[in-house]
Order: sequence, then C-alpha cells, then structure tokens
Amino acid sequence: MNATAETELLMLPGPVPVAPRILRALSKPMINHRGPEFKQLLDSVLEKLQPVFRTENDVLVLSGSGTCAMEAAIGNIGRGKTYASVENGKFGERLKTLGSLYGRSVPVVTDWGASIDLAAVVAALDSGADAITLIHNETSTGMTNNVEKIGTLCRKYDALLIMDGVSSIGGMEAEIDKWGVDIAFTGSQKCLGMPPGLSMITVSERAWDLIRDAQKRPYYADLVAHKKSADKGQTPYTPTLPLFFALEEALKMLEEEGLDTRITRHSIYAEAIRAASRAMGLELFPQVNELSTYSDTVTAIKMPSGIKFATLSEEMRRRGVIIAGGQERLKGTIFRISNMGHVSKGDLLQTVEKLELVLLENGVVNEKGAGTLTADCALEEL
Amino acid sequence: MNATAETELLMLPGPVPVAPRILRALSKPMINHRGPEFKQLLDSVLEKLQPVFRTENDVLVLSGSGTCAMEAAIGNIGRGKTYASVENGKFGERLKTLGSLYGRSVPVVTDWGASIDLAAVVAALDSGADAITLIHNETSTGMTNNVEKIGTLCRKYDALLIMDGVSSIGGMEAEIDKWGVDIAFTGSQKCLGMPPGLSMITVSERAWDLIRDAQKRPYYADLVAHKKSADKGQTPYTPTLPLFFALEEALKMLEEEGLDTRITRHSIYAEAIRAASRAMGLELFPQVNELSTYSDTVTAIKMPSGIKFATLSEEMRRRGVIIAGGQERLKGTIFRISNMGHVSKGDLLQTVEKLELVLLENGVVNEKGAGTLTADCALEEL
Repeated sequence: MNATAETELLMLPGPVPVAPRILRALSKPMINHRGPEFKQLLDSVLEKLQPVFRTENDVLVLSGSGTCAMEAAIGNIGRGKTYASVENGKFGERLKTLGSLYGRSVPVVTDWGASIDLAAVVAALDSGADAITLIHNETSTGMTNNVEKIGTLCRKYDALLIMDGVSSIGGMEAEIDKWGVDIAFTGSQKCLGMPPGLSMITVSERAWDLIRDAQKRPYYADLVAHKKSADKGQTPYTPTLPLFFALEEALKMLEEEGLDTRITRHSIYAEAIRAASRAMGLELFPQVNELSTYSDTVTAIKMPSGIKFATLSEEMRRRGVIIAGGQERLKGTIFRISNMGHVSKGDLLQTVEKLELVLLENGVVNEKGAGTLTADCALEEL
Repeated sequence: MNATAETELLMLPGPVPVAPRILRALSKPMINHRGPEFKQLLDSVLEKLQPVFRTENDVLVLSGSGTCAMEAAIGNIGRGKTYASVENGKFGERLKTLGSLYGRSVPVVTDWGASIDLAAVVAALDSGADAITLIHNETSTGMTNNVEKIGTLCRKYDALLIMDGVSSIGGMEAEIDKWGVDIAFTGSQKCLGMPPGLSMITVSERAWDLIRDAQKRPYYADLVAHKKSADKGQTPYTPTLPLFFALEEALKMLEEEGLDTRITRHSIYAEAIRAASRAMGLELFPQVNELSTYSDTVTAIKMPSGIKFATLSEEMRRRGVIIAGGQERLKGTIFRISNMGHVSKGDLLQTVEKLELVLLENGVVNEKGAGTLTADCALEEL
C-alpha cells in the first residue's frame, strides 16, 4: 500500500522533510508586497543570509528554484563571455549548457563522479576563459569539489568564479568570500530545510561591474532589477510570499541551531550513512582525491549486484522511506540518500535499518544488523 | 496603529485575499516531485486548467510569477522575430521591453488608459510583424482591451497572438481558442485567488511549431522542456510544491463556484465599485470606446482634488483596507481597487464605506452615504 505523504520520510536531495513550524509559516495570510511589513521581512532575511553564505557581498532572493538562480548567474554576466565549464556530474553539465546558451563554453569534463581535472582548468584559463563555473557539491554524484583551490587559480588569472552551492550553502563549509567566489547561489529546498520555490544568490563587486555593463540581461531574473528593488525593501515582481514567510522561519531555526552545529550535524549524519554502507559491503560512488571529498549532504552508493534500483526504491517506499536513484547516465548504477532538512537521528537510523532489511531480504547482504549498528555508533557523536 | 496581516483586507490587484482552505493546503508536507503522487496532482491541475483558459491547447505551469510566464511567452518564440507591441498601460510596456530583448519591437502605443489604436495595429501587421503582444486586462489602468478584434486581424495576417491574461483568465470572459490566441498566460495571485508564485501558460499548435524551431530558448522557462516533462507528469526542475497543493485546492473551489458564476460575481463587484465611485462624484480613469471596457477585476479611479494618494491609502490602511496607487507615470494620479480573490460582499461594501468615510473627512465628498448605498444596491444582484 501507498504510504501517505504524512508518513513518508523523504531522504531525497530535495524536496527534503520540512519542519512543522516552517510548514505553518507558509499558511500566513497574504500581505502587501509593496508595504512596510514585507520590507521588514525582506530586510531581515537578506541580512541573515549573508552569514549563511559567509559573505559581505549582496545576497538577493529570486522567486524560482535553484535552476532559476543558475540561469541568472550566467545570463546576467553578459553575452560573448567564455566560460570554463567544469563538469563532473549532472549539474556541472547544466552549467555547461547555460554557458553555451549565453556565451561560449570551454568544457572541462571528467567522468561523473570523478574529481576535477586541475590541469584542464589551468589550460582553459590559459586559453583566456573569462569565468569558471562549477558545482560545489554535486548532488548527482554525492561528491564535493574543492572550490578553494579553484578560487586561488581564478584570482591568479583574474577570472570570475561562479559556484553552484545549491546542496551545500547553509549546511556545509562554503566560504564564499574566503574562497574568492564571485557569484554563488542556493535553493530553498536543500540545507535550509524549506519547501522548493526560492533561490538565493550572492554577487561580488567585480561581478556587479560586469553585470551592470552587460548589453542584455534576462528579465525575470535580472539581478540589477532585484538589487535596485531590494535596496527599497521590495522585489521587482510579485514575490512568492508564502515561501518568504517560510524563509524567515527557516533562518530563525538556523540561527537557533547555529550554522556550525548544522554543518557538524550534516557531517555526522553523512558519515553514519557512509560507515553503515561500508559495513554492509556497499561501495560509495565518488572517486575522491585531494580535489574532492564525499558529500556531507547527499551520499551516492553504487547499486550492489543482486538488486535493481526499481526494486530497492519500491521496497523502501513501501516501508515509508523515499530514496533517490541515479540521474540520466547514472540511472540504475547508483542510489542516493540525502540527510538535509528536518531529519532526526531516528529518521536516519530508520533509513539505514530499512535499507539493511531490504538488502537482507534480497540476499544482497548476509550479516544482520551490521549496518544499523554502525550507523547507531556513528550517531552517538551527536 | 498598524492593522495586523490577519485583519488587513487586501483590495490590491495581487496579492489578493486567499481563502483559508487554500492557505491550509500550502502547509502539506513535501512529496517526491518525481513520484506518482505529484504526477496525479499535475495531471489533474493541467486538465482542470484547460476549461479555465477555455482552450483545447496545452496548458503548462511555471514555478514563477506572471512575469516569468510573460518572458517565457516571448523568449521561447525565438530570436529575430518582430513583435507589434500594443501598449496602453504599464504591462503593455513590459511586453514591449521583452519584445526588444528577444527580437525586434514595433511599438503600437497609446496613452496609458486610452484604447488601442487599431489603425496602428494594422500598420504594424502590414509592415510584416510576426506577432502581436497585448494585455487583455491592463491591471495598471483598470481597462480591458478587446482581444477578439485583434485576434481576427491576426488570423487575416497570419500573425501570432500573444495575450497577457494575468488579471483576467479565470475571472473574466477570456476565450483563448475562440479569439484565436496562440499564447496566453496568467498568474496564481489574481483570479484564481491563490498566493503569488506560479504562472500558467497555454500554447497553440502553430506557436509550438515556432517554439520547437527556435534557435535558442530560455532555460528555466523553456516551454519545450516543460511540455516534455508534463507529458510524464513532472516538471523539468523542482516545482514550488506548496503552490501546486494550493493550485489543486483553488481549482476545486473554482469548479465548485463555476467559472461563469465567478465571472458574473466579479462583474457585479466591479460594477458596484464603479457605481459607488460615480455616486461619490469620482471619475473612472480609463477612456473606453468600442475597443475597450472597464475592467471587472480592478477599478482605476482618478485621484480627486483635495486629497493625496498617500493620505488616502494611509487612512484606508488605518481602517484595515489596503488599496493600490498608480504605477510609475500614473503615481499620484489614480488609485485602484481590486475585487479578485477571497473577497465577500461584506468586504466590498466595507471598502466602499471606508473610502467614503475618508473622502468625507477630507472634505472631498459632502453627501454622506451615497456611495455605500449605491454599492449596496448593486450588490443585491448577487
């Protein structure tokens, strides 16, 4: 039987489980988006977002998902620019597509799940790329790229650094200013533990210079229009009000927990999933080296032989836990478990326990309880 | 003292008051946007939207406001097209801006609040315009343009017709197929009585032909990607789930009331506001002729001498009613009262009564109660 949405545990890398108090905030009656109440709300969330991004630069909120911000990041920079498009997963590929749509893209591609090819990045910069685009935390492969190293290179070549922080900002170490990131963005339905619908984007002074000079900018996601309106406590077009109410509450919750505590929690959660996976004889998907680490927000595990993803996900779903599969070329070869959003230790343990049960029943693992016990031990650190 | 959002009556042309059952729907827990539950929801809302648009064409939902759909309408058609951009208000001007951004715009401009210049439209078509863009109901001026006449012209010249139905579709007569409209769109926060955050767009077969052939399309608002995903019961990027839950509820409410009944209700509401305004000696802003009518969703009234908009709106707000001013060049010269969304007869009467009170206190009107009484009589038709 179908589990109902009320009881399904979404261990997906978005949408993530949302805390009841954030869900309740969505239901507030409408307000005038040109009035003082909205101004107060916007001023407050923009101020609170800067420390989440660890930046002194402007942060803006767009009424659209992470992809909206991704398009804004590249589309606002101006036509005719050359982007060194680092790709080692599905979202890196999307940045490459956007680079070609708005300018010229020099692809810097490695296998999905493999680490960045630093020599190829240098070659792209040598050939005169204006900007590097890359994903900080590749949701599709469960791998975190070392942005700091790329940031150092960008400064050396005076190139712009555009970073997708959709599944990292607000839940992993993401040092926008320290790493020299010019444009970074995230989505509401990831580390902030909100429903999908908003994205947040930060812009450095030197990125602003390029954006202001751009011959053409997108209209709905025009960052100059957003900045001009934000300075008056407004948005250029009608904002998705319920999500702004939710954002205010989500940022309150983040302040209460503390960003560092949340980062540590995510790291312990993810380590518990990784340790449990290894204990069950499963193999992690990413090929990490000095330019990468396993992601602390989403874990990608190779599909073990003896079970298909369709069976695994359906049997998990019947037990009330929703997990993600591989996307596009990774379909059928990996499965993914996220630990973002309103996920308790119990939720995490339950996920591992049910995974172990399904794998046992399907003869994929033989030893009973090794995974669950390992996760339980790892979670004791919290 | 500030009235709280709980008690403020938003007589704005968006955000509009939202029914409690729609607000409650926003708070549902998240679901997997790639799962069967979302597919069921999307299939159901897309089916229910066709009769709202009075079309057999595809209807798609974008996770962005009406402006997002407006950009999608023009941005997807392809570069290098010539748009005859009909402008007689702020939103017509926005269509013109978008026409220039994505192609070439031939402006067909009359004063804001004046009717369309049909001869100029014909001239633009004669000069080879590929498409006409126009606003059905100009929210900024309280005027409804006669789209049917323009549609007939478009067919004669084999030009595309792109119509903004943001403040008309779902609450006024808007006959997409009968009028020969190729692309039409609306926003969630208008006649559907929802919070802002979604837009709905319909595309005719001949518009699809152009869109599929387009060399470049926007990414986030790529209509081909939306159509491809919709056929599988999905959206190309993570959808604003709470607004989709609300849309399902809003369409249920619209079915319960009936589209014709809602259209009649809006028409009686707006006539009550117009009649009351005249009874108070106020003058309506639009200069209507055979190519236009007064809008049945938003009424624009000239600012009477003896009071400034800032005073009027502030004194109304203190009494718990929020009204809109003029935008841009109309700032200070008009004020606007909407009757869209969850607005009862009592709410409407209260708005007129408070308006009359403020105008009395400021010496703008002398006769006590004429406006309120007139509105009351007009509302008896309901």
